[in-house]
Parts: sequence; C-alpha cells; structure tokens
Amino acid sequence: MSESSYPSVKDLTLEEKASLTSGGDAWHLQGVEAKGIPGYMITDGPHGLRKSLAASTGETDLDDSVPATCFPPAAGLSSSWNPELIHQVGEAMAEECIQEKVAVILGPGVNIKRNPLGGRCFEYWSEDPYLAGHEAVGIVAGVQSKGVGTSLKHFAANNQETDRLRVDARISQRALREIYLPAFEHIVKTAQPWTIMCSYNRINGVHSAQNRWLLTDVLRNEWGFKGIVMSDWGADHDRVASLNAGLNLEMPPTYTDEQIVYAARDGRIAPAQLDAMAQGMIDLVNKTRAAMSIDGYRFDVDAHDEVAHQAAIESMVLLKNDDAILPLDAAASKKVAIIGEFARTPRYQGGGSSHITPTKMTSFLDTLTARGIDADFAPGFTLDLEPADPALEAQAVETAKGADVVLMFLGLPEAAESEGFDRDTLDMPAKQIALLEQVAAVNKNVVVVLSNGSVVTVNPWAKYAKGILESWLLGQAGGPALADVIFGAVSPSGKLAQSIPLDINDDPSMLNWPGEEGHVDYGEGVFVGYRYYDTYGKAVDYPFGYGLSYATFEISEVSATKTGANTACVTATVTNTSDVDAAETVQVYVAPGASDVARPKHELKGFEKVFLKAGESKTVTIDLDERAFAYWSEKFGDWHVEAGEYGIEVGTASRDIAASVNVTLDGDNKSLPLNEWSTYGEWESDPVGGKVVAAAIAAAGTNGLPTLPDNAMMRMFLQSMPINSLPTLLGEGGKTLASYLLDEYAKLTKNITE
Amino acid sequence: MSESSYPSVKDLTLEEKASLTSGGDAWHLQGVEAKGIPGYMITDGPHGLRKSLAASTGETDLDDSVPATCFPPAAGLSSSWNPELIHQVGEAMAEECIQEKVAVILGPGVNIKRNPLGGRCFEYWSEDPYLAGHEAVGIVAGVQSKGVGTSLKHFAANNQETDRLRVDARISQRALREIYLPAFEHIVKTAQPWTIMCSYNRINGVHSAQNRWLLTDVLRNEWGFKGIVMSDWGADHDRVASLNAGLNLEMPPTYTDEQIVYAARDGRIAPAQLDAMAQGMIDLVNKTRAAMSIDGYRFDVDAHDEVAHQAAIESMVLLKNDDAILPLDAAASKKVAIIGEFARTPRYQGGGSSHITPTKMTSFLDTLTARGIDADFAPGFTLDLEPADPALEAQAVETAKGADVVLMFLGLPEAAESEGFDRDTLDMPAKQIALLEQVAAVNKNVVVVLSNGSVVTVNPWAKYAKGILESWLLGQAGGPALADVIFGAVSPSGKLAQSIPLDINDDPSMLNWPGEEGHVDYGEGVFVGYRYYDTYGKAVDYPFGYGLSYATFEISEVSATKTGANTACVTATVTNTSDVDAAETVQVYVAPGASDVARPKHELKGFEKVFLKAGESKTVTIDLDERAFAYWSEKFGDWHVEAGEYGIEVGTASRDIAASVNVTLDGDNKSLPLNEWSTYGEWESDPVGGKVVAAAIAAAGTNGLPTLPDNAMMRMFLQSMPINSLPTLLGEGGKTLASYLLDEYAKLTKNITE
Repeated sequence: MSESSYPSVKDLTLEEKASLTSGGDAWHLQGVEAKGIPGYMITDGPHGLRKSLAASTGETDLDDSVPATCFPPAAGLSSSWNPELIHQVGEAMAEECIQEKVAVILGPGVNIKRNPLGGRCFEYWSEDPYLAGHEAVGIVAGVQSKGVGTSLKHFAANNQETDRLRVDARISQRALREIYLPAFEHIVKTAQPWTIMCSYNRINGVHSAQNRWLLTDVLRNEWGFKGIVMSDWGADHDRVASLNAGLNLEMPPTYTDEQIVYAARDGRIAPAQLDAMAQGMIDLVNKTRAAMSIDGYRFDVDAHDEVAHQAAIESMVLLKNDDAILPLDAAASKKVAIIGEFARTPRYQGGGSSHITPTKMTSFLDTLTARGIDADFAPGFTLDLEPADPALEAQAVETAKGADVVLMFLGLPEAAESEGFDRDTLDMPAKQIALLEQVAAVNKNVVVVLSNGSVVTVNPWAKYAKGILESWLLGQAGGPALADVIFGAVSPSGKLAQSIPLDINDDPSMLNWPGEEGHVDYGEGVFVGYRYYDTYGKAVDYPFGYGLSYATFEISEVSATKTGANTACVTATVTNTSDVDAAETVQVYVAPGASDVARPKHELKGFEKVFLKAGESKTVTIDLDERAFAYWSEKFGDWHVEAGEYGIEVGTASRDIAASVNVTLDGDNKSLPLNEWSTYGEWESDPVGGKVVAAAIAAAGTNGLPTLPDNAMMRMFLQSMPINSLPTLLGEGGKTLASYLLDEYAKLTKNITE
Repeated sequence: MSESSYPSVKDLTLEEKASLTSGGDAWHLQGVEAKGIPGYMITDGPHGLRKSLAASTGETDLDDSVPATCFPPAAGLSSSWNPELIHQVGEAMAEECIQEKVAVILGPGVNIKRNPLGGRCFEYWSEDPYLAGHEAVGIVAGVQSKGVGTSLKHFAANNQETDRLRVDARISQRALREIYLPAFEHIVKTAQPWTIMCSYNRINGVHSAQNRWLLTDVLRNEWGFKGIVMSDWGADHDRVASLNAGLNLEMPPTYTDEQIVYAARDGRIAPAQLDAMAQGMIDLVNKTRAAMSIDGYRFDVDAHDEVAHQAAIESMVLLKNDDAILPLDAAASKKVAIIGEFARTPRYQGGGSSHITPTKMTSFLDTLTARGIDADFAPGFTLDLEPADPALEAQAVETAKGADVVLMFLGLPEAAESEGFDRDTLDMPAKQIALLEQVAAVNKNVVVVLSNGSVVTVNPWAKYAKGILESWLLGQAGGPALADVIFGAVSPSGKLAQSIPLDINDDPSMLNWPGEEGHVDYGEGVFVGYRYYDTYGKAVDYPFGYGLSYATFEISEVSATKTGANTACVTATVTNTSDVDAAETVQVYVAPGASDVARPKHELKGFEKVFLKAGESKTVTIDLDERAFAYWSEKFGDWHVEAGEYGIEVGTASRDIAASVNVTLDGDNKSLPLNEWSTYGEWESDPVGGKVVAAAIAAAGTNGLPTLPDNAMMRMFLQSMPINSLPTLLGEGGKTLASYLLDEYAKLTKNITE
C-alpha cells in the first residue's frame, strides 16, 4: 500500500470513521472535511462514462448525462476475444473520467450469462468464466493504468433480473467456484480492482452485502483483495451486519452514520473491523488523488471515437455467409436496398444504469451517405413491440424488389431488454420476421444485420437470409464499423462469447428459471452454456467460440509439453490460407479424462487472437496453469487436480477443434484420511488402507477376522460398503474387521505423521 | 389401536424396552421371552416371499429360499394400472407368509424412478408419485387384509444405488413434497402400513435413520402414521440418535441394547420416546399375532400361480404393432421361429434382496410345447454381456429364414441390472441388436419381446421389428402369459409407468447423476420423467401412460364439475370400438394455468382401468381432491391451491389426450402478512396493502410522501422493488413512504385481527 497523504484511521474520530463507510450522496464518497479527505465522485459505467447532470441531487435519473464516448457494451466487446483492445477501451474511459473528475467508474460487470434470457446479458461478458475474466480484466487494468478506479460488479451471482433485490441464489459450492466466481477471482488476482460492488441478491441464504463468506473469507482472505467493497445502490439493508461482513461503503447513503457509531460503542462492531473498513476508504481516496488533481484535462474525442470504432469492428460475429454474399463490393454498380429502422436509428447500447450520452453518433445510413455509397432505404417497421404497419411493410417489399442485394437491419427494440427485467422469449419480434419472409420472397440475396444485446434465436428464419451478421450493440461508432465490415474494408473477426441455442428450452437452466417464491436453484450445476451442450451432445444453432471470416485459416503443428507436475504449454501454428488480411482466434480447451466427478467435456482455458496478413503464419504459445486442469472439490473444500490423462484441444470454436493432444499429469495427491465411512473399495485403493486390508485378508480366520465373500455380486456390494456397514454383510466378523482396519490404520498413520 | 394382549411398555423393564428396539437376528424381531412377547420372523419381498433357508443364521444369503409364488416385480406390475389386481397379489403373498410364519414382508418399494439407470428401477413403480402410490397401496392393503404386515420402503429418496449407503440426496422441499414423498404419504394415509423401512441414504445432510424431520415430523405428526419404522439392513449408524429421531427398530441388530439402556439412564433418550418406540413394537406383534397363530396353513399354489399369470398378462406393454402383426393366429399353419435364449430361460425377476425361488416355472418355449404350438427355436445368444457367438448367430439367422414370422426374445441379462449398482447405459446389449439386424435382413416379420427390469432404448433398433412387446420381468407365469398375449387369447393392456426416452442424455437428472463426492443434487426439481418431457416439449420414444391394444377405444362425453371450492369430479365415457374384448386405462391429468411457480404442464391425478367387451361402453367417474391441484409452497411451508383456471385432461397416455375441460377454482386464499421485504407490486395487489398504497398516493406531496414516477421503466423498477429499497429510487421520500405503508398496514391489520 502506498504511503498515505491523507490521515490514516488512527487520526480520525469514531464519527469520522463511521462517516467514511457510507456515501455523501448518490454519486459521491463522503469525505471528512475536517481532515481534508475529499468526497470524490463515482459514476456508472461500464461501456463509457455515465455522469448524470443531476448527479449531486441524490436522485437517480438514467436519461440525462454529460456526453461520453459510448463504447460497445460487453455483449459486443466480449465477441472481440481481444484483451488488448479492451484495455484500450479502459484507458479511454479513464481519460474521460479524469476530465469529468470521476474517481471510480462502476464496472465492468462480469456475471455469467447463466441463461440468455437474463435482462442484463447485454452488459455481461460470457457464459464462460475464463473468457469473461480474461476479457473484462482489460477494462480494469486499462482504467486503473490511468489512475482511475473501477468497480468490478455485481459480486456475486446476479444472473437474473427477476426479483433481483431479494432472490436467494441457491448454488452448490462447486458451481460457485467453477462458474460464478472465477471471473471475479481472475481479475482480483491479476488486476486488483480498487473497488468491488456487491450484488443485490442473496447467495445460499445470505445477502451479498452481509455475506462474510463472500466479502471477507473468499474475496480478501483467499484471493487477497486489497480494495474496498461498496454496495450496489440500495443493496445494503443492515449497515452494521454489512460492515461486519466486509462491506466498506454503503451506497447511496441510506442508514445513518450514528448507527455505526452506536454499534461500535456497544461492541456490535469490533474496532479493528471498523478501522479496516474506513482505512480502505482512505486508501481508495489516496489511489485516485493524483488523477483527481488534474485540472482542465480534455480527452481526445476523435481518438476515443476511433477506439470505439475499432472495438465495434471486432465485436461483430459473422454467423452465415452463403455464396460469399459478404462483403459487398461498393465499387460494383450493384443496387443495394437497406431495410429496417435500425439502419437509421441504431440501437447501440442497453437500457438501465449503463445508459450513456454519446459524443458522436453516425448511423449506418448516414455513414453510407458520407462515404458516397448509394442505397435505397425503407424503415420496414417501428422500433417497438407494436403490430406491423402494412404501409411500411409494402414500402419495404417494394424497395427490396428491384435491388441486387438487401441489407436487412433487424434486432431487439430497447423495450425488449434492459436492466430490471428478464426477457420472456429468445425470439425476434414477430413483425420483423414476417417482413423478412416477405422480403425474401421477392429477393434471394438478403443479408440480415442483427442488433441485440443478448442472444436471439436465428434458426427459425435463417433460411430467408444468405448472410447473417450478428452486430450486438456496437456503441456510437457502429455505423462506420458496419460499413467497414459489410463492404469489406475489414474482415469480421468476432467469435461468440455465448452459445446460440436452437430453442430456449434446450438450456438446462430453464428448469429453474427464474426461480420462484424468493429463491432460484442453480440445478444445472457447472453445466452452463457449452459445458452443457457439448457434454450432453445437444445440438445448438451456433456453438460457443464460433464466428466466420472473409479469410480462411489453418491450424497446424499443435503440441503440448508438460511444464510441471500439473502444468503444460501448448503451441500451435495458425496460417491465413486466403488472400484477405484477417484475424483468427486460437482457442484452447481442456478435456478431462476419467474423473471422480462429472466434468464438462471440455472447458476454455486459453485463447489468443492473431492478426494475419494474407498467407501469413504465426505460432501461438499458451500456458496452462494448474487451475486449467482442476475442479472444485467439495470434499476437499479446495481445487483438485486428479492424476491422469487430459486432452488439450486447439481449435476455432468449441465445436471446431483442429487437433487434440494429450498430457498426463501427476495430480496434486490430495487425500483425506480414511475413516469408518470410507468404503471397503476406498480402503483397498488407499496406499496405507490397502496395506491394512491386505493384512486383514492374510489374517482371515484368526482373531475373529472373517473370510471375505468371493462371488461377484457380493464383491461388488463389498466394494461400495462403508466399513461401518460390514456387520450387515459379515455379522460379528464384520465388526471385528472394521475395528481391525481402523486400529491398524491409526497405528500406521500415527507412525507416518510422527 | 386394538387392545393389546401382550403387556404394554408399562409392564416392561428398561432393559426389555431397549431390547424391543432391535432385531433378534437378521430376520427376526427380538421378543421378550420373560413377558411372553414372541420374536416373529420378517422377510424380504416385495414381489413374493423370500424366506431364506438360512434365515436364522444371521447371515445374508440371497440365493437360497423356500419356494414362493414369484409375481411380476413392480417394473411389470406397475404397467397394469390395476390396483385391484395388485391387491390380489398382496392377498396371495400374505397367505404364503402365513404358511411360512412370516409376520412382515419387506415391501413394497415406492421410490420414484428419478432416472431410468437406477439399479432398483425394476422393483420400483413409476416416475410418477401418484401412480406409484395408487398402485403399490394395493400390495399394502392386500397383504394386511390377511393379517400380515408390510414394510413400505425405502423411506425416502433412495433413487440410485451408487454410493447409496452414504450419499446425501440434496433435494428442495418442493421436490420432496411433490415427487419423492407423495407415494409414501398416500399409502400411509389410506392403508397404514404396519411398518416402514427407512433408506440408507441421507436427505439434505441427515441419514434417514436419524432424520427426525422425516420419521417424526412428517411421517407421524403430519401424516398420522401409526406403525413402526425399521432401518434398512445396516442403515442405522447411531442407535441413540435414530431412536430419538423416531426409528423403532434397528435391523439387523448391530449395536447393543445396553447402549439404549445407558442413554435412557443418563437422559440422552427421553423415557417417553423410548416408551413410544417400544410400544410400537408391541403393537406390531399384536397386529400380527392372529395370523402368526394359524398353524398348518397351506396356500393354494395353483390359485396363486393363476394370480401371477393374470398379473403377468396385465404387465405387458405393446409398444409397436405395425400391420397388426400381433396377435399371431395359432390355428393358421404359419411357421413361427423363436429366437433368443430368454424364450427358453426367462429372466423373470430382478437381482438383489428381492430374489425368490418360484413354485413353478414354465418358459415360453415350454408353454408352446404344452399347448401343442409348433415353432422352431434358436437361442441366438447367451444371457450375459460376453461377445457374440458366431455359431449361435448363424443358427438363428438360418432359423429365421424359413419362417413366416419371427419372435425374438431380447432383453437385459441379470448382470445388467440389480440392486447394488446403477446401470451405465440404457442401450440393449450390442450382440442382441446385431443379431436382430441380421434376422431382420432375412425376415421382414419380426416381433421383439423384451425382458428387462427398467427401460431400454428402443428407437435405435425399432426399425428392425414390426412388433415390439415390452414384457418387463413377468414373474413365474410369464411363459403362459406371453403365449396368451402373443397368440391373442387376451389383448395386451399394460401402460407405461415411465417414459421411454430417445436418449438417456435427454433426461434432465443426467446433469446430476449419480452425484459425486458423497452427494447428489436433485437439480431438476419437480421436472422428473414426463413432467420434464411434456413441459419442455422434448421428444420421447414412447410417452408415459402409453400402450397399444388389439382393440380400439374412443373416449367421449368428457366433463368436469366443481364439487367444492377446490375440488372437482370428472366423468368420461370410454367405448371399445373394436370386435375384441380388451381393457383401456382412462388417465386424468391436471394442467395448471398461470402460476406463481414453475409447474409441470400436467400431472397424473386419476386413472381407471376399464374392461370392455367388444362394442361395450362404460362411464368412469374420477374425483379430484384439493391436492390434485396443489403445489408445495416453500413460502407457506404447506400445500397451496391458487385461484384460477385449471385444465383437466382425459386421455390414454400423457401425449394422447382425448379431451380437455376447464374448471375455475376459488383457491385456498393463503397469504403471508406484508412486510418491508414485500415488493411495491405485492403491496399493490394485496387487499389491505392495496388500500394503504392508494392512501399514500392520494396523500402524495403531504407529510413528505413522494409523488411516484410515471415513466414505464421506472414503474417497472418500482413494481419489483421491496419497499425497503424505495429510498434508492425516491430518496428521503422513499423512506417516508415505506414507513407510512408499514404503519398504516399495521393499524389496519391490527383492526382486522382484533
């Protein structure tokens, strides 16, 4: 911790310490004026700065904020698979914070897309925790590299909007550790976000704000988190309990500081705990002080727009491109029809607390005009969920008729997805699909450009389109970026960060979605997204990691080398086998072999995006640490690497594996001592237990030790029998045998540990 | 309770009371000789008597027992949908117990077939708790009508064999109450089994033998159980804890009676609890005394064989019958080839503790000989999991070549399914299917007769057979029964008691099967079997309730009448529209409308098997009680019937609904008081809360009460917001509003309750 230029808690009164642990108002820290500690501003992110003009009134107004660069929300950015690009986005956002004197930007949000209906999927990263953590860390590191703080959120298990303020997410320890926490864990361990925002919901019965297991045991003691934890706005309902659990900062200020003072005086809060929570707040102010002291800074609006532009380009995923209908050749005198209101009125960000005012906004239509590309336009439909307008439809069909190619801009209107509610369907609005069908009837060369924050079903209407470009929400530079990709200035390179299912009912979380009566059971355990689809051999429309390019690539020379008892290094060569410059993302999945637990068929454990000129080759090297092979063992209460063979798959999508190689790991040799509840089979296979069993067999017939049955079924019963059940099978002899095993084992293990 | 002719616990010493709470040996109660209380015998069932010849040695020998009628195991009998027939089976078993001086027969087992891989599925009844309870109650009532006791087992949640002695079944309260307990509940409430056997496993952390919630709170206090609970053999691991939880009887005797004496003396067992447990044992002996006092009784072997014969007939389910290939006409001089060792060496029961020695055994082949029906036979394969024998294959193909029709007897060898282990595949042994393919290549008229205890996949090979008769395990009279059905003396009438999936990976329990590290999460909740497939629109091979007949039926005049606020009565007419006498099973499913919780699309809530002569009609009347419409609410900790419309579907399979009619129920008006965690929306819709909200809105602007936002998104946020979160949205006004609501509500509800 760097030297503090503001007082330490030792110099503060009890009242002053208490005051540090809540906000000054909805968007400011509460400084300590008497001690010269400022009350810096903190504001919403996460894909750009949302500094409300009414920020100091203490109220929440989502529609009115100072202009800021609107980068693609995570739904888009996550498809880039490009942490360096994401780092640039973070740096740019920090510069805007410095200009606006914002000390902490509230984001990124790295909750897992457990179910694509989740209302906030547009601002979360992935169904895969490795990808979410390794992408979003770029935001945290990027922002903080400029001296501005981030708030990693929503910690943890905010995977739905339904009843989010009180729902109890009932999740197994294994699913928490393998799916819902690792993105947070990775970012904490590698980038130390200065703040973390706790979620509204409960986890296994305890609200996150009051969850000491979450905020102290796991976050600080296990992961070594050094920053502060703030509540989501209104997530604290018991300030004393929350402070004791490890919450530094209640936002917005709801309960009085006096409550903390009284609790400290009568012993309900330990002095050391209050000191630690308040010191965290002073440390935060110290970290942000340098950047907040810069006056008159103006960020480069054009440069940031260019970052947003590049980010938008890499956010698009080309799903379908029959007959190489894309890219269009702007030079060729083909007649292009553009249909869909989204081309004129783009939907470029999601709804809710992340809603920002962009510095620029050029629609796709305006971009074409600016670039001198001729095209006919018909809006076709209105951006709502109202019934179709026959006049608009007729106009659109007429426009499509005479064209050589139709670009149809379809998507979800803002009313269809936002913070605050979950979607009730994955399907596109019916009127848009009805129009698509009509257009396809008069024109065979249709390219659909999709604008949506979370996955929509594609299969029901894919037959009407030769090309499908999933552009998610692209931020303010989406228009130019789309034009670049559609007309071939650059190849699309995005890869799906979430599976596109054929039917939402294929998703195993649907059996417990969105829960009921105040709780939701995560019954699918670790089998989220492709971990389910790939393990259980279920068809999807487009698999995780998928995305087409204008180029073609080949992966070759895949090899893996063991670098330690339980680590490995993978190398592969990727070659652009086309005459188009483009990027490909090499994806590494680990496929466990036989295991004591049910493991996903394979899991993403490394990736690298490679930019290759036409014909160029590069070799990528990806290290796999011990965690890449581990599962969370509830038995050990720890990560566990089993000895044995693991497949290492290298490919360009979860279902497009170019080559798989094996490594054999030593395992971590974790074991628990045997006891009366260990089965006879477990005794036999344990190094020490096996010796004791052998001795008992050798001594059968003496001292009351029984002869064991030898028929196959009895042997099978025996194998699975805890030795405290041996009397059931063997009568008195079973009792004798169990006692013998326990006694002899105790002797041998006593010798070992002495 | 009838007057006791043996002493009550008041007349016993502490030591004598203690001694009553464990067995005398593995197969006898421990009497109290000094007080004249006998130590009656109890033995395994459940589809016939398994009285071990070595019963008094205290050892377990599954292969050696006195002859008894082998009825079809539950796998078969459950397909009969005929409780009266099942009652007859129970009566017959009781008579055999009386002859053998067995006081209690250990069965039936009514655990739910959560996953068809479960090793004991062959001796359980159904994936549906209503069907399981309403069929198996026939065994209990039938046996006990003759003065012999039953032991309803395995209480509860023994749904797998893997690690069954210690696995912790982690199940939501709702799934327990709606799926895993109702079969027990129904039988306890309607037939009062004299004993219940607890399961080995744990439920939510507590072994069943020590589970006071299970054995006392639910079983005795809620359901009114009057009998005794015994441990499964070896399921008790802490006799003091178990006795305190409500276990009357430890079997076999494992811990010493002195432990109980000491615990009673030092207060670890309350005197009243020991008295209650011991008195239960005396009551049991009194109940069984009359039957056990009958000397020299001989049961009618032929009559019981005839019951077994009829039961076997009704156990078969005709899955496929293209071109009406069945029945065969024995009189026509068609050449019949019979292939498959099962025709000569039937597999007629499952493995494990239920394995009995039949009084008679006539194979299908022997039956044909006895009836003078000519047929060629080739065994084709051996009854094991070894590789195919080319010579046997060649002989079988040769036999098939010249025949007009081939009956192929396929199935699972005993090594493939038994108590003690779960299956690892639903698929038939590969060598049998390979042979089927070869036979089908030379003969187009193939009928497959299946022998298997639990479901096998049919779809992969169904194309090779024109007819498929699922005969499960048919008990000792399977040969004659098969001949009756195959040659048309009687029409098949069985209906599937479990879905036949296309692929085991379609089953949602596969995501948590069979668990790991000592636990298994029932993540699919209530969505077991057809409750999943039908609700989520997933294809199955053959649906629950399905089964063909040689006759045709029509269901007409379906109507439902409300008989109370939350009850209804359904009537329907079923007509045999063919010229073949046969039976059809009318099935009634309740389909809830909109609900606060996720409910299955429909659930079986009534059925009646109707025997109809050719052309005959009958009207069935089925009452639906309040429970038929209820779900288990974790919020209320009770069953809950919501007001509203319910569909009542009448059909002949879960996917063959002839007609659906609606009833509108009043609901049970359960509600919880509003509090600070109730959402604004819940306040609005509550009768009292709504008044208070209206008053607050009317008073907006006075006394600090805020004006509520009127834009759509803010309204939506507000609706889902617990009122203790209102300050986040409304600042100080939100605090004032929440206080106002709580205060005014308290006043109004105080008035109401006063």
